[in-house]
Amino acid sequence: MKKPAPDQHDFPFWTDEKFRIADTDLNGHINNNAIGQLYEAGRGEIISSVLGPPAKREIGAALARVTIDYLAEAHYPGMARIGSRISRLGTSSITISQAIFVEGRCLGMADSVIVFLDKATRKSTPMPEHVREGFTRLG
Amino acid sequence: MKKPAPDQHDFPFWTDEKFRIADTDLNGHINNNAIGQLYEAGRGEIISSVLGPPAKREIGAALARVTIDYLAEAHYPGMARIGSRISRLGTSSITISQAIFVEGRCLGMADSVIVFLDKATRKSTPMPEHVREGFTRLG
Amino acid sequence: MKKPAPDQHDFPFWTDEKFRIADTDLNGHINNNAIGQLYEAGRGEIISSVLGPPAKREIGAALARVTIDYLAEAHYPGMARIGSRISRLGTSSITISQAIFVEGRCLGMADSVIVFLDKATRKSTPMPEHVREGFTRLG
Amino acid sequence: MKKPAPDQHDFPFWTDEKFRIADTDLNGHINNNAIGQLYEAGRGEIISSVLGPPAKREIGAALARVTIDYLAEAHYPGMARIGSRISRLGTSSITISQAIFVEGRCLGMADSVIVFLDKATRKSTPMPEHVREGFTRLG
Repeated sequence: MKKPAPDQHDFPFWTDEKFRIADTDLNGHINNNAIGQLYEAGRGEIISSVLGPPAKREIGAALARVTIDYLAEAHYPGMARIGSRISRLGTSSITISQAIFVEGRCLGMADSVIVFLDKATRKSTPMPEHVREGFTRLG
Repeated sequence: MKKPAPDQHDFPFWTDEKFRIADTDLNGHINNNAIGQLYEAGRGEIISSVLGPPAKREIGAALARVTIDYLAEAHYPGMARIGSRISRLGTSSITISQAIFVEGRCLGMADSVIVFLDKATRKSTPMPEHVREGFTRLG
Repeated sequence: MKKPAPDQHDFPFWTDEKFRIADTDLNGHINNNAIGQLYEAGRGEIISSVLGPPAKREIGAALARVTIDYLAEAHYPGMARIGSRISRLGTSSITISQAIFVEGRCLGMADSVIVFLDKATRKSTPMPEHVREGFTRLG
Repeated sequence: MKKPAPDQHDFPFWTDEKFRIADTDLNGHINNNAIGQLYEAGRGEIISSVLGPPAKREIGAALARVTIDYLAEAHYPGMARIGSRISRLGTSSITISQAIFVEGRCLGMADSVIVFLDKATRKSTPMPEHVREGFTRLG
């Protein structure tokens, strides 16, 4: 059974992206991996809002699993808005739930499991308490 | 609970791909969307083995959902082998299960739901019987 | 001998783009092909400002040659502004000269030769007069 | 005046690459930035044949300028062969001349200026003598 398409009010955090010609493919639409790049852009920004930019983070963040539902095609030219929220808060991982909207219409959604890593050992590590609080506010 | 990592003997269909410098990202590894491109390359080849190349297909094929598990990092330079099999055969859709291997080691896996489309109406359409038989042999 | 770095006042047409994580590579900077995508984005917009979006153009436009100078590295996260102008106006081709700026600093420049094509024959075709006038205003 | 299309005998070094669905664009052909990725793949391999893989090089290598001529379109599916040779050997830079062939037909060519960098200071540095000899053999 399909999940209902998300509503824009479901998301506390937004990322604006622009389709590029290089995002299109031979089907004449935005390629599904380019859509994946936009969800990644949104994840990067919501994580950076708590942990800072990649070069300055006290812990690493790695994608462990992603599920993307494609509900409708997107076309060049256009702008996309990616809504993101923290839908699950674990000890050393979070799930980011996202949806992509073009002119108010939902084109799909994604759930991504992010695992936090010790930067030296590259092993899974619990989030520090202030990081956990930061993500809690984005639920 | 995590699924066990797939074995190379699970897959009847193989696609060989090569990592590019442009596939890497600031983490020093192959970017997760580049991995997505390789699964897409594998899906393209297993679908083409039954339906012919995109320009000559009697029905269209669209990605409706993809789930990717990332088990280990991949690095440039290197070659990847993508194993594919048809793990579910519906009336107007199939699921392609895949795994990616580098030097015999499984780096992750993907399940993709492909919906077949009438080329004129772009609506979901049942597979013709000979197409269904073709995919059955790749289960 | 190197050309001097362009100044922002040299360009009548501007395109704003945002760096993505997927644009980075193992050198920790924005990959040179991602920079190429941004110049292409700028070319697409300046051409569309005269000819309309790709799906509605009366003549086709194909890249025949591009030269890119890389003056400095770009890093994620960040926004880029791409300045574009028509630096040569031929009968059936134009040259678009561009530069990319991040926070006011020029990171490089590009010259691209665009050839106009008859949409039916895919052969080179002269620009209609109103198209020529449109590009003249962007010189 | 156009340069003549290169011949396969002009190149001592070859790289094999495969077109991906994600390399295509809305024009139905391989996107010009994907072609750029293939030239970069070829440059990576010819440089690695002398300097070793990126992680193990004694000096860094950065792209300073690239010129690409697009002579004909490429289409998915297909394989490309990229021929590379060192066409100019400076003190702290080289020029790599390349051409891309599909089924024996030349689709275009590229000239790339590579500058060698001290890995600590990121400043231009002369090639060590054994590196220079290595590139001389690929002229």
